[in-house]
Amino acid sequence: MAKAAEPPSGTRDFLAADVRRRKAVFDTIARVFEHYGFDPLETPAFERLEVFAGKLGEEASALIFKILKRGIHEASGEADLALRYDHTVPLARVVGTYGSQLPSPYKRYAIGPVWRADRAAKGRFREFAQCDIDIVGSASPLADAEIVWAVHDGLEALGIREFQFLINSRQALHGLLEAYGVPGELGTKVLGSLDKLDKMASDAVVAELVEGGMPVTTAEGLVADVTASDTDRVRKQLDTTERGRLGIAEVDRLLKLTAGLPADRVVFTPRMVRGLDYYTGPIFEVAATGYPGSIASGGRYDGLVAKLGGPDVPACGGSIGVERILAIQATTEGDQSTRLDVALTVLGAEDDIMLLAAQLRSHGLRVGVYLGSSAKLVKQLKWANDQHARSVVIYGPDEQQAREITVRNMDTGAQARVPFAEAVTHLRAI
Amino acid sequence: MAKAAEPPSGTRDFLAADVRRRKAVFDTIARVFEHYGFDPLETPAFERLEVFAGKLGEEASALIFKILKRGIHEASGEADLALRYDHTVPLARVVGTYGSQLPSPYKRYAIGPVWRADRAAKGRFREFAQCDIDIVGSASPLADAEIVWAVHDGLEALGIREFQFLINSRQALHGLLEAYGVPGELGTKVLGSLDKLDKMASDAVVAELVEGGMPVTTAEGLVADVTASDTDRVRKQLDTTERGRLGIAEVDRLLKLTAGLPADRVVFTPRMVRGLDYYTGPIFEVAATGYPGSIASGGRYDGLVAKLGGPDVPACGGSIGVERILAIQATTEGDQSTRLDVALTVLGAEDDIMLLAAQLRSHGLRVGVYLGSSAKLVKQLKWANDQHARSVVIYGPDEQQAREITVRNMDTGAQARVPFAEAVTHLRAI
Repeated sequence: MAKAAEPPSGTRDFLAADVRRRKAVFDTIARVFEHYGFDPLETPAFERLEVFAGKLGEEASALIFKILKRGIHEASGEADLALRYDHTVPLARVVGTYGSQLPSPYKRYAIGPVWRADRAAKGRFREFAQCDIDIVGSASPLADAEIVWAVHDGLEALGIREFQFLINSRQALHGLLEAYGVPGELGTKVLGSLDKLDKMASDAVVAELVEGGMPVTTAEGLVADVTASDTDRVRKQLDTTERGRLGIAEVDRLLKLTAGLPADRVVFTPRMVRGLDYYTGPIFEVAATGYPGSIASGGRYDGLVAKLGGPDVPACGGSIGVERILAIQATTEGDQSTRLDVALTVLGAEDDIMLLAAQLRSHGLRVGVYLGSSAKLVKQLKWANDQHARSVVIYGPDEQQAREITVRNMDTGAQARVPFAEAVTHLRAI
Repeated sequence: MAKAAEPPSGTRDFLAADVRRRKAVFDTIARVFEHYGFDPLETPAFERLEVFAGKLGEEASALIFKILKRGIHEASGEADLALRYDHTVPLARVVGTYGSQLPSPYKRYAIGPVWRADRAAKGRFREFAQCDIDIVGSASPLADAEIVWAVHDGLEALGIREFQFLINSRQALHGLLEAYGVPGELGTKVLGSLDKLDKMASDAVVAELVEGGMPVTTAEGLVADVTASDTDRVRKQLDTTERGRLGIAEVDRLLKLTAGLPADRVVFTPRMVRGLDYYTGPIFEVAATGYPGSIASGGRYDGLVAKLGGPDVPACGGSIGVERILAIQATTEGDQSTRLDVALTVLGAEDDIMLLAAQLRSHGLRVGVYLGSSAKLVKQLKWANDQHARSVVIYGPDEQQAREITVRNMDTGAQARVPFAEAVTHLRAI
């Protein structure tokens, strides 16, 4: 059993450097979304348990953290609240709660923790941040395009350079199944097999399809078509069915509306399925060099808000995998801990030191005052060094007598005596 | 029973304007604390239940939200986790967990939600933000002074102008009880009565003291002394006991170390007690014109970290009542909702519109594209108006023909035709 001193299994304490790194990422993304006219939304950490009832699948429901009733009801062992599992169920509730008070369409982003009682594993947490944008109440293809643009700009703003939007359409996938004569009841399974083509060899996927009941030649043709280097073969197949044509039109519309992005940033990827089955229109996934799996995803999910208890409105959205991005960037970046600009030693004359600290801070410097119990300069300098201070101010009896300070540049080791009255000017210049 | 569509009792959804207002307040305070060399800390929303065991009083323990065990243990109705009740218990755990990995002293701030199953009432919430700074590991009076300075600068940065730190010392309060011959077992009750002197008439407090067993003349003398306009009478009393002299020395030291603050910002207030009884040294409370109650408070609490399960280290801290401040400022400020800089109507030529939007956004403008289903200009202009857009761009068949756009200034109503190629320059200038 873990020590009580550790945070609960699957959760993390974020000390200074981590908080700063995470905040920088969240603020950067938020700034981009604001430019797109998205509004922030923050919902409570928990919802009434009934808000989730029947909304999530069995697997997801088992991962919900439930909160015990309080007071005399606690003994019942029953729960009436649950920590939020994602930002989508709360969004559906909010759309139901505020309705016409919200802008129409309602473009919102949500960046914050969600909680899932998943089995703890490396890189999988029970408390982790999700970063979502969604547009509720618009059926326009421009809305789908705007999600792609906004996610694109968000990723670029995070310093990610080599990445690609793999796009597809749920209609196109259904059309594909029709074109290859896949019986309706096998559809989900077949799509599930195709979805593995980014990690599994074609042969293995063909074998899986055949095992599932598909004739060998059909399976081979399907896999060859969806993995071909150009999409002409798939397009030809899709052109043979009504849904296929609708799907291709959807894909081409999105390609056209995102044509302003750098070349090859958005590519039609017929094998891309997206695991979740609530998507109804265009879908996307973002693959980036140096990042395993996808770092963002999304699509149109017209039926979902109603299914989650909100009104029946069209919607589309996307999600940036901020935890994955943070984890990768943490290993490639150096220590981002913030240094003290000035460390003030305390060798008497404490009132002067407090005043000097106040003046330096009012000029925007990050200033630390020695708060330990040692009167020895060497100990105080060690503290300053531990704080990674750029400069240290020494104001001992000598200096006090002369109304001067000694400033030591901790990077170069250089020391200088400066009149006390010029301390602020001198230290700001360093 | 409340509708399922509402957030759970005692919690709030924060829509755009609220999120922005709250974030601005939190970021402002964080910036000030950073200048003082405080590091941010974020702990999980929940802790192991045993972390709280015996740490909080009975009253507080009843307010903890407990989380049911998951999986097969759920049926037991037992809890193993609890939402954090404050930022102090997690701080004590973190100091225990990371020990010497933390800077010494450890100066940290924490701004974020805590959860208490309090009876819901106007202005009292079950999920609310607390904003704490603490210095763990320093017994220096400079640490106490730094808390006062940092809280002071935080309040100023929030635009609060008229406020006052009422300071006192636990030692002084004990000395006062000794000087007036209050038996030890009555001490807490007597201090509780004195604490009401900011809201209750002196007579009523005297009556309460007498009812508690204090001779009338003593009660009258005590109340008269602690409410006198100058503190000379109390100082004279305190000077008669050892603890009293220690207390006065503590108060005077803090007054001296904060002498750089504006005149009368920090005042010795002998009747100020602070409700919580874990304080051991200097204590403070901040009263501000226009804000009921106190908007900040704090003090030295040397024994607490050990009591909460951490190591036995001296500590002091303060807390800014951000929810109270936000509530008051919300009633005095106008609507802070962010306007769209440019609203783009869509009357065909959608690809051009998406490109124009991208260009405007890349220049930092907040841009909305019409995502509704109406092709009617009047409906699209209504949308732009609802979004409080500064400018609207119209790009109908006429304009497309001429490769121009029509720009309408929504504040003045002025309209102008501009070549499409000059759209960005023109719109940035507005």
